[in-house]
Amino acid sequence: MQHFECDYLEGCHPQILKKLAEINMEKNPGYGSDPYCRRAVEKIRLACKTPNAEIYFLTGGTQTNAAVISALLKTYQGVISAETGHVNVHEAGAIEACGHKVIALPHTDGKLLPDTLEQYLISFYADETYPHMVQPGMVYLSYPTENGTLYTKDELCRLHTICRSYHLPIFIDGARLGYGLCAETTDVALHDIAAYADAFYIGGTKLGALFGEAVVFTDPSLAPCFFTHIKQHGALLAKGWLIGMQYDVLFTDELYFKGARHAVHMAMKLKKALTEKGYEFAWDSCTNQQFVILDNEKYQTLKEKVTFSVWEKKDETHIVVRFATSWATKESDVDTLISFF
Amino acid sequence: MQHFECDYLEGCHPQILKKLAEINMEKNPGYGSDPYCRRAVEKIRLACKTPNAEIYFLTGGTQTNAAVISALLKTYQGVISAETGHVNVHEAGAIEACGHKVIALPHTDGKLLPDTLEQYLISFYADETYPHMVQPGMVYLSYPTENGTLYTKDELCRLHTICRSYHLPIFIDGARLGYGLCAETTDVALHDIAAYADAFYIGGTKLGALFGEAVVFTDPSLAPCFFTHIKQHGALLAKGWLIGMQYDVLFTDELYFKGARHAVHMAMKLKKALTEKGYEFAWDSCTNQQFVILDNEKYQTLKEKVTFSVWEKKDETHIVVRFATSWATKESDVDTLISFF
Amino acid sequence: MQHFECDYLEGCHPQILKKLAEINMEKNPGYGSDPYCRRAVEKIRLACKTPNAEIYFLTGGTQTNAAVISALLKTYQGVISAETGHVNVHEAGAIEACGHKVIALPHTDGKLLPDTLEQYLISFYADETYPHMVQPGMVYLSYPTENGTLYTKDELCRLHTICRSYHLPIFIDGARLGYGLCAETTDVALHDIAAYADAFYIGGTKLGALFGEAVVFTDPSLAPCFFTHIKQHGALLAKGWLIGMQYDVLFTDELYFKGARHAVHMAMKLKKALTEKGYEFAWDSCTNQQFVILDNEKYQTLKEKVTFSVWEKKDETHIVVRFATSWATKESDVDTLISFF
Amino acid sequence: MQHFECDYLEGCHPQILKKLAEINMEKNPGYGSDPYCRRAVEKIRLACKTPNAEIYFLTGGTQTNAAVISALLKTYQGVISAETGHVNVHEAGAIEACGHKVIALPHTDGKLLPDTLEQYLISFYADETYPHMVQPGMVYLSYPTENGTLYTKDELCRLHTICRSYHLPIFIDGARLGYGLCAETTDVALHDIAAYADAFYIGGTKLGALFGEAVVFTDPSLAPCFFTHIKQHGALLAKGWLIGMQYDVLFTDELYFKGARHAVHMAMKLKKALTEKGYEFAWDSCTNQQFVILDNEKYQTLKEKVTFSVWEKKDETHIVVRFATSWATKESDVDTLISFF
Repeated sequence: MQHFECDYLEGCHPQILKKLAEINMEKNPGYGSDPYCRRAVEKIRLACKTPNAEIYFLTGGTQTNAAVISALLKTYQGVISAETGHVNVHEAGAIEACGHKVIALPHTDGKLLPDTLEQYLISFYADETYPHMVQPGMVYLSYPTENGTLYTKDELCRLHTICRSYHLPIFIDGARLGYGLCAETTDVALHDIAAYADAFYIGGTKLGALFGEAVVFTDPSLAPCFFTHIKQHGALLAKGWLIGMQYDVLFTDELYFKGARHAVHMAMKLKKALTEKGYEFAWDSCTNQQFVILDNEKYQTLKEKVTFSVWEKKDETHIVVRFATSWATKESDVDTLISFF
Repeated sequence: MQHFECDYLEGCHPQILKKLAEINMEKNPGYGSDPYCRRAVEKIRLACKTPNAEIYFLTGGTQTNAAVISALLKTYQGVISAETGHVNVHEAGAIEACGHKVIALPHTDGKLLPDTLEQYLISFYADETYPHMVQPGMVYLSYPTENGTLYTKDELCRLHTICRSYHLPIFIDGARLGYGLCAETTDVALHDIAAYADAFYIGGTKLGALFGEAVVFTDPSLAPCFFTHIKQHGALLAKGWLIGMQYDVLFTDELYFKGARHAVHMAMKLKKALTEKGYEFAWDSCTNQQFVILDNEKYQTLKEKVTFSVWEKKDETHIVVRFATSWATKESDVDTLISFF
Repeated sequence: MQHFECDYLEGCHPQILKKLAEINMEKNPGYGSDPYCRRAVEKIRLACKTPNAEIYFLTGGTQTNAAVISALLKTYQGVISAETGHVNVHEAGAIEACGHKVIALPHTDGKLLPDTLEQYLISFYADETYPHMVQPGMVYLSYPTENGTLYTKDELCRLHTICRSYHLPIFIDGARLGYGLCAETTDVALHDIAAYADAFYIGGTKLGALFGEAVVFTDPSLAPCFFTHIKQHGALLAKGWLIGMQYDVLFTDELYFKGARHAVHMAMKLKKALTEKGYEFAWDSCTNQQFVILDNEKYQTLKEKVTFSVWEKKDETHIVVRFATSWATKESDVDTLISFF
Repeated sequence: MQHFECDYLEGCHPQILKKLAEINMEKNPGYGSDPYCRRAVEKIRLACKTPNAEIYFLTGGTQTNAAVISALLKTYQGVISAETGHVNVHEAGAIEACGHKVIALPHTDGKLLPDTLEQYLISFYADETYPHMVQPGMVYLSYPTENGTLYTKDELCRLHTICRSYHLPIFIDGARLGYGLCAETTDVALHDIAAYADAFYIGGTKLGALFGEAVVFTDPSLAPCFFTHIKQHGALLAKGWLIGMQYDVLFTDELYFKGARHAVHMAMKLKKALTEKGYEFAWDSCTNQQFVILDNEKYQTLKEKVTFSVWEKKDETHIVVRFATSWATKESDVDTLISFF
């Protein structure tokens, strides 16, 4: 049986395991006040070209999204997201549980296009009853999107400009950030993310860490008392050095990006092979997630040999399924997978 | 200047004012424990044919929706609503502020059709990732809808059957309940509402009361400690007898329905006249709200003579506006309004 | 049977009723955008000597406390209150339902003394684990307190100074504000309240209005989008003019203060008479609430003839009960009450 | 420098590290649906003698407390806790952020005594205004308490009986459960905890795991859809097998209890030595936390050589400090520490 259902099947990069074994019996102070976290912060600041950024380490994605969004919004505000956004669909109402509406706007292949955003904002404030509605308070983007697609630098720039003029901070969900930044076709670098977003996170769980997400506030004044805020959210790890250490390792010798590049390379191999075999894709993804359209018969035979995610029903006779590669995917497994088609 | 922008421009029915003057200096106990509330409860139970219903009096609609919905949902549940539902659009995120997602489904002329609901529920539970999503916990309907349209008895029955099989209570927002029940074309009576809904409210603010909404729980076990719950929501009026007294008056000699019938009669006169003059309507409303399509030029001249609500832009040259009649609308004012077209 | 259980037994001042009758059939725009609210705002600004204050009209006390407190706090902050504060005891957890802890400090006869506050703040920040705790975000005071006692001008000034140095806004719950300001012994005037508080409310429900509380933000920038915030809290009255009109009347010819003065006068008559008869009081209240210590036998006989509130058990043989006078209390009723002792 | 400031300074038990290295590159399904979690569940059920218990694995203590408490309470309810309870003091308002008041009752050496609880409940329901207050909805206990003290079996039994009669579930915070169960003086076994509590957790973070808390619902119907609930709380670890694996190891060959016993043994050695040297303790703790009273001078010299927690100021010249041992404490370090006194 092959396994391509997600990009968080394995544990962590061997280098992380090695480091953990080395320092396991050290006595480190709690809650992120250890040297590993400090070192990781410095390396991330450098990588993002944001020497003054505030950086925090949290455990998982839903937790991070909820903590950041509820820190940036006022009570009467909601967060704008593409309707396909993870916060709108797959977080069990975590944002609403913090008291905020997800203002879901139409998506284009998983992206919230600048025009869609601008049109919404113009209409919103043109409606004289707008004070009776949740006020837009920030914009949530995913990079890459839940559909594996990528914003261009130009799109990010335009979104940024619109948001500036409406005083809306931008928060980028980077659960799979590396897989987007290492796509062959992208013109966006990590420092572009840092330049266009007011806050974002560099996902670790799906990119070589056991767990962990590094939140970057490029403007340090944006989230005062965020330490207390994440404690309140139950998102403060006692042994915070566990996450700091992992980022310290991942941001040494570009380990984070090497793993990401490998995953993308594996995904492109799969994409090319399937395209050649005549398969079609639901969206044109250049990242580690590939959304293949299968007919029902193929779907039935395939699921006997490989695990994958069922994404959505396309029509009566077709289904969209997702295959995900990761930093840990073996090329031989991809070859085997290709042979199933 | 004529005023047709909403159905809550005036104060209250003169009978209510008279009663208030009579009892103003009485000493009544607080929080609904007075004889007026008790009498109103009995009259409403009788009118609904629900002798065991629990009935509470709240002040306004948003407050009532938030209090009832948060009482019926568990933390991990959301409320299903047509995307046009008042709770989804015009309540400033009051439901989300209580921690719950509004699960917005496509509407048909403002209605959540039984097929739409059933299809959503089938799809929801067919998705193997459903435990990662907000669980549907109840259904919110408006009668009449925000578009002035009405569910038929058959539709309510089918919605009820679907909801029963998924263990979802139905809550009907009756901010304008009377205007729906008194529509000439409806086959739904008050006791049908009580039979198909697990909870609903009989709106007073828009139907002859100074303010007040009467919440009916047909199953008294549905909302335990609702008194404490509404206190927590800041929705417990100190002088609760003020609302009880108003419902006592409104449910004497059918005053509530007489006022509603008058408003609908006025709206039908307007509708007929405008139809004859060649105007079109955005939806076919048989209730007190009429949604007229105006060209931009007509819109400009009309707004000099009459106040109304701008509903939405239809296209580049047309706009949908709303005229609302009420229990207090004078026939001569409707005649004047008609003469403006 | 005499009734002294609370100060909100009757409806409203006859002048308000008269005005309501006059304007009942006027067509007024909703949500506070009417001329009565505007006029009331101007009169209150003048009375408070705060020409730039933002003023909003809400319906009841719990609602007002929850709306203001949740508007002033950030997610990670709590509100400091005397442990006897209404928000800590009798609001069914309304503050916590908004996500905030009530940080309850020891009281002295219902008051939060400056020293108590300062000592708490010093200790809080001296504890190195303070970032793991709810951060103090504002101070809630009641004037008069729940025990009928009053802060002196000097105490308010000291509290103000302490709060300034810790950047904590002060919010004064003025549900019975008039009864405090009209106490014979007070040295605090309405404009002092406005000078020492960042936000406060002038209670109407207990002082001659049918219902209504006027919130004053002396610093208009303190609560941005408060309109949307109160809508979200279900605290926005559709016919907002109903409250504006009442304050317009109450702040004409000092009606508000005349009613308050009468109530205090009645309470002092009762206090003097009971003192002469040898009764003792739980606290020395100079306002409209008198907390009398009864032995159990007296309690049993008295409750056959008059309604009052049971406040607390003092010891095995004594009980503290509360008698409240109001703007509407008749002197002859006070005389009758005195005759029962 | 010696380190005794807390019991979570090191990483994990070497056996766990070994197991992690073994399975790191396995492909395990996410969110707790893996064989390690299943095995851990079975072992915990066996150890607790609760074959039907529902067991979930969360990451940290604050998160676990908030998730369980908000799952067990209804909107209008609060959780009763000793005022010293972790949920009341050191969780940054996490319970209130979920909408619930912590009803703080007086403690006795950190314990909520049965009489204190019963007296509160009797008084609460004797107050006729109780429906205006937060309703008690459950009881939170810590075992051991934050002061290192322990409930006796008899006390737990009495608390259980009181709670049954008031329909209040009991939730035991077992962040340091092992350290309590392995105290020499306790008469409480793990299955007693399971018998007297409706829910509790077996802390891992402080007892040999990298992180992780195992929540046990002895009555599986108590928390429906808890999976979705923890997802909503951001408390669902993607690689859930990481926690399951750790509990699998810890509950093999009694590793969990062996580590706990060692820590207690070390603490008793310290306690005995300091007692002999004439030091006094703030409370009589038989667990791994020792609260020593130091004079200011000793405090100053000691903190140059060893890290510890400052607990509270005792008086002008004395201070209470905490030394914590753990599963990882070396006896030679304890000896060194003793030599400092």
